[in-house]
Amino acid sequence: MERISQRQAAQTREITFETNVNCHAEGSCIVSCGQTKILCTATIEHKVPKFLYGKNQGWLTAEYAMLPRATGERVRREVTSGKPSGRTQEIQRLIGRSLRAALDLKKLGERQIIIDCDVLQADGGTRTAAINGGFVALSLALKKLAQENILKQDPLVKKIAAISCGMWQDEAIVDLDYLEDSNIDVDANFVLTDANEIVEIQASAEGGVFSKNDFAKMHNLAEQACQQIFKLQDAALAASK
Amino acid sequence: MERISQRQAAQTREITFETNVNCHAEGSCIVSCGQTKILCTATIEHKVPKFLYGKNQGWLTAEYAMLPRATGERVRREVTSGKPSGRTQEIQRLIGRSLRAALDLKKLGERQIIIDCDVLQADGGTRTAAINGGFVALSLALKKLAQENILKQDPLVKKIAAISCGMWQDEAIVDLDYLEDSNIDVDANFVLTDANEIVEIQASAEGGVFSKNDFAKMHNLAEQACQQIFKLQDAALAASK
Amino acid sequence: MERISQRQAAQTREITFETNVNCHAEGSCIVSCGQTKILCTATIEHKVPKFLYGKNQGWLTAEYAMLPRATGERVRREVTSGKPSGRTQEIQRLIGRSLRAALDLKKLGERQIIIDCDVLQADGGTRTAAINGGFVALSLALKKLAQENILKQDPLVKKIAAISCGMWQDEAIVDLDYLEDSNIDVDANFVLTDANEIVEIQASAEGGVFSKNDFAKMHNLAEQACQQIFKLQDAALAASK
Amino acid sequence: MERISQRQAAQTREITFETNVNCHAEGSCIVSCGQTKILCTATIEHKVPKFLYGKNQGWLTAEYAMLPRATGERVRREVTSGKPSGRTQEIQRLIGRSLRAALDLKKLGERQIIIDCDVLQADGGTRTAAINGGFVALSLALKKLAQENILKQDPLVKKIAAISCGMWQDEAIVDLDYLEDSNIDVDANFVLTDANEIVEIQASAEGGVFSKNDFAKMHNLAEQACQQIFKLQDAALAASK
Amino acid sequence: MERISQRQAAQTREITFETNVNCHAEGSCIVSCGQTKILCTATIEHKVPKFLYGKNQGWLTAEYAMLPRATGERVRREVTSGKPSGRTQEIQRLIGRSLRAALDLKKLGERQIIIDCDVLQADGGTRTAAINGGFVALSLALKKLAQENILKQDPLVKKIAAISCGMWQDEAIVDLDYLEDSNIDVDANFVLTDANEIVEIQASAEGGVFSKNDFAKMHNLAEQACQQIFKLQDAALAASK
Amino acid sequence: MERISQRQAAQTREITFETNVNCHAEGSCIVSCGQTKILCTATIEHKVPKFLYGKNQGWLTAEYAMLPRATGERVRREVTSGKPSGRTQEIQRLIGRSLRAALDLKKLGERQIIIDCDVLQADGGTRTAAINGGFVALSLALKKLAQENILKQDPLVKKIAAISCGMWQDEAIVDLDYLEDSNIDVDANFVLTDANEIVEIQASAEGGVFSKNDFAKMHNLAEQACQQIFKLQDAALAASK
Repeated sequence: MERISQRQAAQTREITFETNVNCHAEGSCIVSCGQTKILCTATIEHKVPKFLYGKNQGWLTAEYAMLPRATGERVRREVTSGKPSGRTQEIQRLIGRSLRAALDLKKLGERQIIIDCDVLQADGGTRTAAINGGFVALSLALKKLAQENILKQDPLVKKIAAISCGMWQDEAIVDLDYLEDSNIDVDANFVLTDANEIVEIQASAEGGVFSKNDFAKMHNLAEQACQQIFKLQDAALAASK
Repeated sequence: MERISQRQAAQTREITFETNVNCHAEGSCIVSCGQTKILCTATIEHKVPKFLYGKNQGWLTAEYAMLPRATGERVRREVTSGKPSGRTQEIQRLIGRSLRAALDLKKLGERQIIIDCDVLQADGGTRTAAINGGFVALSLALKKLAQENILKQDPLVKKIAAISCGMWQDEAIVDLDYLEDSNIDVDANFVLTDANEIVEIQASAEGGVFSKNDFAKMHNLAEQACQQIFKLQDAALAASK
Repeated sequence: MERISQRQAAQTREITFETNVNCHAEGSCIVSCGQTKILCTATIEHKVPKFLYGKNQGWLTAEYAMLPRATGERVRREVTSGKPSGRTQEIQRLIGRSLRAALDLKKLGERQIIIDCDVLQADGGTRTAAINGGFVALSLALKKLAQENILKQDPLVKKIAAISCGMWQDEAIVDLDYLEDSNIDVDANFVLTDANEIVEIQASAEGGVFSKNDFAKMHNLAEQACQQIFKLQDAALAASK
Repeated sequence: MERISQRQAAQTREITFETNVNCHAEGSCIVSCGQTKILCTATIEHKVPKFLYGKNQGWLTAEYAMLPRATGERVRREVTSGKPSGRTQEIQRLIGRSLRAALDLKKLGERQIIIDCDVLQADGGTRTAAINGGFVALSLALKKLAQENILKQDPLVKKIAAISCGMWQDEAIVDLDYLEDSNIDVDANFVLTDANEIVEIQASAEGGVFSKNDFAKMHNLAEQACQQIFKLQDAALAASK
Repeated sequence: MERISQRQAAQTREITFETNVNCHAEGSCIVSCGQTKILCTATIEHKVPKFLYGKNQGWLTAEYAMLPRATGERVRREVTSGKPSGRTQEIQRLIGRSLRAALDLKKLGERQIIIDCDVLQADGGTRTAAINGGFVALSLALKKLAQENILKQDPLVKKIAAISCGMWQDEAIVDLDYLEDSNIDVDANFVLTDANEIVEIQASAEGGVFSKNDFAKMHNLAEQACQQIFKLQDAALAASK
Repeated sequence: MERISQRQAAQTREITFETNVNCHAEGSCIVSCGQTKILCTATIEHKVPKFLYGKNQGWLTAEYAMLPRATGERVRREVTSGKPSGRTQEIQRLIGRSLRAALDLKKLGERQIIIDCDVLQADGGTRTAAINGGFVALSLALKKLAQENILKQDPLVKKIAAISCGMWQDEAIVDLDYLEDSNIDVDANFVLTDANEIVEIQASAEGGVFSKNDFAKMHNLAEQACQQIFKLQDAALAASK
């Protein structure tokens, strides 16, 4: 088997985190995964959304958008269509659920964290890259809160990473770029913790089918890739004071 | 372990399909799963959406909505908020992808099938019930096309069913009703074929985590439940001439 | 004169009320008038809209919608156009005004009743059928309130029914189905009480004209038809405990 | 009985038509009915809406709006709420249907006439004043078409006028101003031809009821008032060359 | 050089102010500048927008709209497009800023003045005419407040007028009508006080360029024209008691 | 006089252009002006907007947006309010007009260039920085077109730069940062060519006034600053092959 990208089945693209790229946000980074580049910022608000008033806990929500020239063909800004597309809403809900799994919301107190993920350049895998970069921006923002002695306990209780997998010529492959993604029907996204716990799995054959065994192979590749990503996240956070 | 619903871990609610309930639609049924009741209609249009012009294939899309009093508290009609919610869009995209897996779109020819799923009464599991009922409405509409000698080959190439699972007191349980769903964090939906192939898996801990073993147990329960549903779908289709 | 529907000039279609069809709503029925079928639910909210704060009275409002396959050709959901059409708004305002005439709003107290009328299947006369079914759902909801000893006095002070009439070959006819409606220009809707008082008259020649005498003939037919409907409503309510 | 306005039961306010007030429109007038003042313009487009393509006939449509300070309290522009209100849509559909009754749409040919009615100052009765002024603007625009020898036959086949009536202290009264309208529940609008044919009747007790005899009295007053209005329209049109 | 309008370079069209044209508004006028006619009303609200709560000052805002037949070709109402166009927003923000320069907002107290400018007929220069007419409506409304002894000090501290200029055959000209405006690229609007102070300058070559000297010539013409307008405004206000 | 920023009256912040930052766009740069950072991309489409069909010329349009954390306080994405704000529309129209002045649209042929300006970090002066960066992205895109031998003649006929000025303690100052801008009422933006021709001037006292002499001083500072910017643009373009 030969991948379109010439990579090995289990080989991800180069993944980097450039931290503290925005002077206003409480936490920020640009995450790159090959040609995919996303600006992630974390904003801390000292109030919670209405449905949590008086519940003595915090919240995390995420927003996701593509700049018009993030893609090969320019895409219309969503503002001119009057509402975020279904795809955008699906992705930002996924990012939000995934990063909430990193937190003990009680320990966060009555605060809301907003993770903004703006895709500067896209080449496949933007939703998983956004989760990886969002985790770094979130960690930086919480570190800042801790340095200001605002929190009694660290609300960050788990590490989170995410990666995509697919089936190509009957083999499982990891971290699909845009060209690979366009030529493959099975698209599986895994969000995992550093203890290999499952946060979220979204696996779809986009109108086709796949076997239980295919699924198990993809799951294994995802676990390996996420372990690499946890190391890169740790290193970026350690280097950023 | 005792389920809130008093059912066995592997026991679904009563599932029924009342066929041909609408005199206008090409195919229709009301699917019930316990107190959940959904009107599913299939409409056949003899044209395809723009992105498929001249590609010599058909398409299937789905729409999903809740009537205002489908729920215990009346919910505002989405028309008054100006756009379908993220949840609605996510569900209708899932139904569409799932039922496209039933079809060979080339054999359908340049036609579009629209599956409308309107929830008359909700008690949990509406998205999986909509897939089960949508499959019956789709089958009836295609049978009608076949009787009119419009199609050369049957485009229906796979049977599709769906069910939800969850984890309760460390055990996997199947077909959660609204009360169970509200008390459980892990929510996994499986869409499968009668050969146990996977069409779609969406598993989320809603801000928590679960293990690989938990996932395997839920997958097994889903396979059993879907096999029951295939029999009920077959019987309803056989009884409806 | 021969009607398109083969019915006598003064003959309505078969009208039925299936009560308590929804387990969540305070009152509900499916009203059928020939092939026209509408699900009507009544919701009681224990607060009033802003413009009635502190006025020591209640309110009733209605919403109306067609399911996409209620009609021969599928109609787009209004949610995708961002607002209810003029026709929808006109109809739901008519239903609201008509059913408010049944009530002494002072006796209702500071409560709001919402009547939802969702057309499952349409064959002409949906707005008058919605009023007839809405009256039954309203009555059931008020009966429930009474059984719970919440109201001191019965706010239901009048019975309300409605029917359409038209002119065909210079004769007045009653209860037009879709085919008749499409072939006739004069369209008159009468909403009456069981004492033959007028609640609302909407008579339009849709760009043509009609005489005072035509109007009187249609009015007479409407009075006869409404008297029949009052009996059917009474029977349905008596049968439903 | 004494009317709030001190007028006789059958007495309308002063009604005037100032013609040709706009240098761009094909026909225009400002209609006054007491303090109610509406700018009506008629625009002729040499194409028809899509649903009439190739049907060899014309169309007339109307739009209605209130300037923000037409009323005692300033009202928000509808543009800022994103859609015309139900009331606005109901009124503009009524104006359109009423003025189409003046026309033989076949004789108009494949043209569309748009009647814009913008309320400069409101004091009750705007919808009927808009019909009266709209008829004058329409007549002027058709006269202009005739002068340019564009039409073979005059499409204006009927004269149209409209007036409101109500019940006050058990007597019928005509042409309610804002204060009267606010103190009366029965609100009946009559659109008639100069031969006393009925174009449209909208009679509502706004949550109350009225008798067949009340209705007949109001109808009689409306016939008298419309005959006066026809004379004033004729005079204004004759004076305007 | 010969202007399209046959006017002298420094010659404005006839400018008139008809005051008190609306019985509801606190101040009103119809301003005419040649064929351009705008109804301006001033509304006084005894509350301020949220961002000024508790700041002990007032505010002034403006809204601008064109009636559909203000122009040679009918323009669609903005309500049907769901939002005011960029041009409309730009103009109403300009009118607001310009007229706020007339006021000492502290002396106004916690009140908001809304200036509505509705173009009845357009022939170029609507934004500057709206400022001129808006100033008159504003002055009348403040006079009314003063007569009611509501204000301690007069908040009207400067006189404001506005005019357009352009370059035609290398010469500066003033007060362009629609035809001139369509044939000229440089479009400069000046808003000045009676002491020739600058309130706002918007000068654009619409994709071309112009020189510093051109700009100075236009500025001079604008100063002359505004001085004339101040006299006309004074006279209209003096005549209106 | 001492500026808040400690800069000299005529001293701009450091201005840099990082070119070719996006692998998809035909031209791109990140422009920095102090802490203000904007990603500018140029997209070339080989078709024109409808109003230019068959006119044998090209077009340029611009879009402008702020990322949510471009500012000290996070701002809501405009997509969630359903439309671009008035400020956004005003700015993107200004950028479009300014950069069209750089082009001979006939020489561009039937092509449209879209300049997207996305503010990554804001500290005042974003609209003028967007024009400066947009000019660089535009030049790069046209260079690419030229290298592909698609254009017969270079459509880039003028150089364009822009800068803001203000009045502080009665002296004119250039290139205001956010803090200066918030403390100054007069806000003047100049768009100039390298021959000191005027492309656009927008000068507003935001509810105050300023003198002709103030204006002249600001204009002089703007000319000096723009000459510096032209050199920086030239250098960045020369360095980018």
